[in-house]
Amino acid sequence: MPILPIDSGRYGSKEMREIFEDEKRLQYQLDFEAAVAQAQAQIGMIPAEAAREIAKGARSSKVTLARVSELESVSEHDTAAMVEALSEQVSAKAKPWIHYGLTSNDVVDTSTCMQMRDAFSIIESKVAKLALLLSDRAVEFKAMPAVGRTHGQHASIISFGLKFAVWAAEMAKHVERIQQGSKRFLLCKTLGVVGTGSLMGDRALEVQKIVAQNLDLYPVDAATQVVPRERFAEMQFCIALIGSTLDKIAIEIRNLQRTEIGEVAEPFRKGQMGSSAVPVKRNPIKSERVSSLAKMLRALVSVSMENVALWHERDLSNSANERFTLPMAAILLDEMLNAMTKVVSELKVNVEKISSNIEMTKGQIYAEFVLEALVKKGVARFEAYRDIQRVAFAALESGDHLFDAASNDKSISKHLSKQELEAIFEAKNHLAASGKIIDSVAKMVRNVVKA
Amino acid sequence: MPILPIDSGRYGSKEMREIFEDEKRLQYQLDFEAAVAQAQAQIGMIPAEAAREIAKGARSSKVTLARVSELESVSEHDTAAMVEALSEQVSAKAKPWIHYGLTSNDVVDTSTCMQMRDAFSIIESKVAKLALLLSDRAVEFKAMPAVGRTHGQHASIISFGLKFAVWAAEMAKHVERIQQGSKRFLLCKTLGVVGTGSLMGDRALEVQKIVAQNLDLYPVDAATQVVPRERFAEMQFCIALIGSTLDKIAIEIRNLQRTEIGEVAEPFRKGQMGSSAVPVKRNPIKSERVSSLAKMLRALVSVSMENVALWHERDLSNSANERFTLPMAAILLDEMLNAMTKVVSELKVNVEKISSNIEMTKGQIYAEFVLEALVKKGVARFEAYRDIQRVAFAALESGDHLFDAASNDKSISKHLSKQELEAIFEAKNHLAASGKIIDSVAKMVRNVVKA
Amino acid sequence: MPILPIDSGRYGSKEMREIFEDEKRLQYQLDFEAAVAQAQAQIGMIPAEAAREIAKGARSSKVTLARVSELESVSEHDTAAMVEALSEQVSAKAKPWIHYGLTSNDVVDTSTCMQMRDAFSIIESKVAKLALLLSDRAVEFKAMPAVGRTHGQHASIISFGLKFAVWAAEMAKHVERIQQGSKRFLLCKTLGVVGTGSLMGDRALEVQKIVAQNLDLYPVDAATQVVPRERFAEMQFCIALIGSTLDKIAIEIRNLQRTEIGEVAEPFRKGQMGSSAVPVKRNPIKSERVSSLAKMLRALVSVSMENVALWHERDLSNSANERFTLPMAAILLDEMLNAMTKVVSELKVNVEKISSNIEMTKGQIYAEFVLEALVKKGVARFEAYRDIQRVAFAALESGDHLFDAASNDKSISKHLSKQELEAIFEAKNHLAASGKIIDSVAKMVRNVVKA
Amino acid sequence: MPILPIDSGRYGSKEMREIFEDEKRLQYQLDFEAAVAQAQAQIGMIPAEAAREIAKGARSSKVTLARVSELESVSEHDTAAMVEALSEQVSAKAKPWIHYGLTSNDVVDTSTCMQMRDAFSIIESKVAKLALLLSDRAVEFKAMPAVGRTHGQHASIISFGLKFAVWAAEMAKHVERIQQGSKRFLLCKTLGVVGTGSLMGDRALEVQKIVAQNLDLYPVDAATQVVPRERFAEMQFCIALIGSTLDKIAIEIRNLQRTEIGEVAEPFRKGQMGSSAVPVKRNPIKSERVSSLAKMLRALVSVSMENVALWHERDLSNSANERFTLPMAAILLDEMLNAMTKVVSELKVNVEKISSNIEMTKGQIYAEFVLEALVKKGVARFEAYRDIQRVAFAALESGDHLFDAASNDKSISKHLSKQELEAIFEAKNHLAASGKIIDSVAKMVRNVVKA
Repeated sequence: MPILPIDSGRYGSKEMREIFEDEKRLQYQLDFEAAVAQAQAQIGMIPAEAAREIAKGARSSKVTLARVSELESVSEHDTAAMVEALSEQVSAKAKPWIHYGLTSNDVVDTSTCMQMRDAFSIIESKVAKLALLLSDRAVEFKAMPAVGRTHGQHASIISFGLKFAVWAAEMAKHVERIQQGSKRFLLCKTLGVVGTGSLMGDRALEVQKIVAQNLDLYPVDAATQVVPRERFAEMQFCIALIGSTLDKIAIEIRNLQRTEIGEVAEPFRKGQMGSSAVPVKRNPIKSERVSSLAKMLRALVSVSMENVALWHERDLSNSANERFTLPMAAILLDEMLNAMTKVVSELKVNVEKISSNIEMTKGQIYAEFVLEALVKKGVARFEAYRDIQRVAFAALESGDHLFDAASNDKSISKHLSKQELEAIFEAKNHLAASGKIIDSVAKMVRNVVKA
Repeated sequence: MPILPIDSGRYGSKEMREIFEDEKRLQYQLDFEAAVAQAQAQIGMIPAEAAREIAKGARSSKVTLARVSELESVSEHDTAAMVEALSEQVSAKAKPWIHYGLTSNDVVDTSTCMQMRDAFSIIESKVAKLALLLSDRAVEFKAMPAVGRTHGQHASIISFGLKFAVWAAEMAKHVERIQQGSKRFLLCKTLGVVGTGSLMGDRALEVQKIVAQNLDLYPVDAATQVVPRERFAEMQFCIALIGSTLDKIAIEIRNLQRTEIGEVAEPFRKGQMGSSAVPVKRNPIKSERVSSLAKMLRALVSVSMENVALWHERDLSNSANERFTLPMAAILLDEMLNAMTKVVSELKVNVEKISSNIEMTKGQIYAEFVLEALVKKGVARFEAYRDIQRVAFAALESGDHLFDAASNDKSISKHLSKQELEAIFEAKNHLAASGKIIDSVAKMVRNVVKA
Repeated sequence: MPILPIDSGRYGSKEMREIFEDEKRLQYQLDFEAAVAQAQAQIGMIPAEAAREIAKGARSSKVTLARVSELESVSEHDTAAMVEALSEQVSAKAKPWIHYGLTSNDVVDTSTCMQMRDAFSIIESKVAKLALLLSDRAVEFKAMPAVGRTHGQHASIISFGLKFAVWAAEMAKHVERIQQGSKRFLLCKTLGVVGTGSLMGDRALEVQKIVAQNLDLYPVDAATQVVPRERFAEMQFCIALIGSTLDKIAIEIRNLQRTEIGEVAEPFRKGQMGSSAVPVKRNPIKSERVSSLAKMLRALVSVSMENVALWHERDLSNSANERFTLPMAAILLDEMLNAMTKVVSELKVNVEKISSNIEMTKGQIYAEFVLEALVKKGVARFEAYRDIQRVAFAALESGDHLFDAASNDKSISKHLSKQELEAIFEAKNHLAASGKIIDSVAKMVRNVVKA
Repeated sequence: MPILPIDSGRYGSKEMREIFEDEKRLQYQLDFEAAVAQAQAQIGMIPAEAAREIAKGARSSKVTLARVSELESVSEHDTAAMVEALSEQVSAKAKPWIHYGLTSNDVVDTSTCMQMRDAFSIIESKVAKLALLLSDRAVEFKAMPAVGRTHGQHASIISFGLKFAVWAAEMAKHVERIQQGSKRFLLCKTLGVVGTGSLMGDRALEVQKIVAQNLDLYPVDAATQVVPRERFAEMQFCIALIGSTLDKIAIEIRNLQRTEIGEVAEPFRKGQMGSSAVPVKRNPIKSERVSSLAKMLRALVSVSMENVALWHERDLSNSANERFTLPMAAILLDEMLNAMTKVVSELKVNVEKISSNIEMTKGQIYAEFVLEALVKKGVARFEAYRDIQRVAFAALESGDHLFDAASNDKSISKHLSKQELEAIFEAKNHLAASGKIIDSVAKMVRNVVKA
């Protein structure tokens, strides 16, 4: 009977969840034992025949979770139980060479990195896809003027596409971070109990290098019993930061979908219910879910940072919490990426509302441009600033359109002709470099994503 | 196939895990619907017969998780699906009165509080039990002198029992926090969509009061669609803080069990393996697990604090993460309480090592008392301080016992007779108020726990 | 030259900042030394004349920060330097009795609690004042219908006063938390190096009790060298949670002040500039500042929770960060309370906008009430739900008012007369229990605040 | 009168603190205004003469903090006040071209990045220096066997140098992170109010590129009013992660300096006092301070992650807390780097104690190697494991040396000759790949640091 909404299947795609299922995890560990035995055989450290047997046993599906659990109930040590279960599948001659020179945590840490290698492969591809999608939508809305808001207030004109460009650029940076970070945090470790490579003698680094290559991981430079947890913290942060960008997108959509703004709407399926009490609601629930889970991802970073300073050659105080942190991070981010990709690609954009919102303040939104026009005409900035503020506040009170108020105010109209004012009060004249910025982001995104 | 170690059954007692299982959660929600209908019938708001039918349906076991999931797959709304499933169990006449005047979140929040009511009942009793156990061990070791360490350095003499007394007192405070906090955070809410009690008109508070009483909860004073999340944050913090005290105990045990200190050892079962590579290890793994999970509990506090500021009459950004935070907090704390109770009650205390450790520094640990004896004899504190430091550092270098060094140093021996020095270098003479403190804590613990 | 905006005077009231200034802190420490000496003299532990001299020296203003710093530069130990500086002010006979039986950290922890005692006195009174203010505003707007929003969407009708009532109730809970928590966390400790009361022998608890009473603090039950840090964590959390409620209020005001909503506005001073580029902006900057600082307060909780598990009878890893955490928490909360009190008391409430916003969706906001009216007429809930959803979505598309659409739809109009529908589409008919809730909160607030 | 220990000068080097002083910050902002004007003049956007005047005014030292504060007290807007103060220094003809096309936050964000550019220059050089120092110490102790501890228990033999190698490698990764991250987070932004480059029209990106180059920063790809806060979060994390590695080193030193272990000691200055009550203490206070401040750095990451999701084209909820977070992070890390560099370079290493500690368990530490020798002789791993565990536990109880116990136990001695056993019980035979690992890390560190 499930408790948490990962195990109940509520969150995360099937492919991502599978990576972290107990059975799959066991297989990663067996694959690691096989890879180590084969590397050791390759350089003549253990008999080739033993390695073959071990590899065969590891891939035989005969080492089952049930058997491992049975053995663990005696030893209270899960990795030892796995090794023992594997050893049951090989001949007496091969038995000594299983797990040779390794410590349990070589298995735990490397198999975790194998999981995260596969998880990041999914994540990177989804982040890249979302970056491209955002970039496409940026280009799509490049020429559409919209209200730019600061402090929740109408502030100026933007290209609606610029919102997407900012997010696309941010997603591209995340791809970069994954690519750079992977080399640091997707680690292979075979250096034994206290990181000396003990029983493998001075050829331990060689073994580690081969295993790492075969598992598509990076050999750790130096380690204690465990790989440095500062690497895992980077991994968690990398995930949480992607989550926070998704949260940023989600919050924007939630805000733009407000009844009073109405510029966008999440896709809404026929039959879907907004509320059990209020039939007419169309709530941005996918985005809200993204915001909710982003908080969880942020919190997990604290756990991983607290894990960095283990005592001496390791203590176990990272272990229990890592059973949660990395699977949760990967699976929840996967859920969020799926949700946000769907939302962005099927987002309903209400072009009319975007356009009419610009006029909501009766021209006040153009105040900045009147200011600058005055400045260009030679009026001192602070004088111009105070003039416009005065006229604008008066118009606000009287309900007049700022265009009329400005036209009728001498301090302004003596500098700006009606024609000039008309050009100022035209939204599409204020996109400025938006197009260039969007194109440049689109190019950058493509470069990064291809890399 | 389980993923997280809560669903796999690794962590938490059966009784605690069950509270949070999907099926049990559904039953809590049905019980809430029943309680509301019955309260409404009691004050004549809905027909008594309808309430009877609803209550019967709710307790019939016929509203299954399977059916609710089926309905949810259409509506994408879990509470609406539960209400619909319940409605299938009653006659047409009763249907209109199901969920009358409620909103989904009345169900979600109140049923969560019902879970937490039962969870805190378990937690409070375990915290209280541990407080008593610690208090008993404090009394047990009241008269046993031991090394007191600050900065990792031998600093002075303590009663070994004092360690337990500090923890016992802290646990008693946690009992107090649960008792005081429960009245704030174990809440019942039936105030509808936006907290006005809408369809129930101005009798909404009456209904809420009756339901709260029947469910052993506290009616919320005022709410939006949701109960204030600052209450849930207090709940999370309360749990995390207990976890941090357990972590504090765990870290002390881990430190005292160090090979070099050896004053205590966790119980170690026959057959248990310390390490897959190193047979002789006896690792304090239960305490390490407690330390590990304490980090997770701390992190969850951040999530709950970020949830406080929802928009307007609610947004959904608390929802997805709360599916994790409260169950995780309750179940992991339960695991930690069980682990630490076992560790404390079966802790092996190495009396000889405690005693011999006092002598490890060859009398240096008594320096503080020499200082005070000199001060009492009228030597200026700073003069005495420098004298002892000089003598002690010299003894350290030469390997002499500080007793001998002090006896042989005129600046000291001119003030203190050999007899006086002998009394100073006797550990049991330095327990000071330890006994009184321990007795007073024991009394306080009993008072709080009984309350 | 200041760096951080506390030292520059940007944040916090003068009275609050002063509590934490180095000079004031020194005086708290001297007062503590005086109180201890006097308590010890009172029970005959040290000569009465010595205590008089110490108390006189401590209050003489002759022990200056400059002198202490000078001495610290030699010893690298700030408390030792304070004790030495104090000792310079007394006769040779009194010198031995300064700091008698104490350890530095008795001074540090107790003086910190003296600071926090004074800080919480300010905080509690401001929280109480804000609770009353919010409660008054709740009553003021009790009868004013307004839009209730969930998920950023118009959801139902509320009393505008209800918003304030929710906040008032939350603030009252904070008063309660401070009152209950103070007894746990405003601590006095005089138990010496390792918590045994060492040199004071078994009368140590007596001394501590007297000192605590005289300093208006609570004696610690049991301690190591330090008072338990779980108490300080509670203190930090208490502050951060108040901050999060203020953030919740701030976010609501920021949202309600949006250009598109316009229901409230922060007070805006003549001459104040909203933006250097956009003259017309009136930004809710006080509320934004509150939101910003609330994040800082939340983060400090993590630090304090990480401090709980110190090693053995103490390590120093709490010390450096506590030089920041408590002063920052108290001063920033003070700033936030001042800001929010000003905002709430001078908040411009745009009654017309509140009223016209209700009509923004052309009656869709009343859908819930149509649903319930149908249910009361005997229509099955799910049938009614689907009917209204259909009619409401159609009206949304066509631009019709839901009143008209509902009147013209047989599935609805066959159950509800025009008169009934008119009553449903009247906002003031839907305040339900709002008035009672508000009155009951107002009463509760008064009770708590008086306590 | 200072409050926080940054302003009091307690923490941070003078050079680092100066970067963040209010006066220096003002100068960074003026330099930015100058750079923008000059770039705009360079491409003919504003008159060259105006740019010259602006640059001259900006560098004249005539725009003082006092004047800016005066102006801010009127406008309540700090950047506007700076612009106004600068404008007082130029002719009427130049005035319109000050701050041309910019918004306040262009100044705030870019000047913050200028500060961080200089801060990271100091940090990177100190991290690199520490990496080299650690690498040197690793090589120095390459051949020295020492106890490796896991779970606080003696586990196996390591090279003492390996501890330093692990830290050196970690520090090298931090250098890498700074180098890679800088390109993302040391940003220049001149894109105006809402990120369109508004008044500069479509040449805005050109201006930004030139300014960025001249200020040794990176132009932001796309922005709202602010540069994306996910970049600042990366910056904070980068700092906190370095802090956590320093904490890891500090905790190791604190543990190795324990009275019972005594393998290292922090440098201890003559005259320094360990405790006001206990003269003989030599406490690892620098390392403890590092641990303490590391917690603060970790907490600041939460603040920065919460800042990522600002509303629309910006809200102000990042602003107040960033006045703390970045200065605190840079200055505290600086303090920690200084402390840890001093500790590592002057660390007293007690070679005798390191050696004698190996013998503390009477040979038990060699159990792992006996196990592997048996395995190599063809004994099944689990059989061997149980044999050794039995013999070792018996030796532990009887007080025998494991060498003797193993020699006398048939299950072992029938496989291993006395000579073989002697070789096994020799610490220097178990360094395995330690030397190679250390050399390889030393090489890697040099490569990264030079890069």
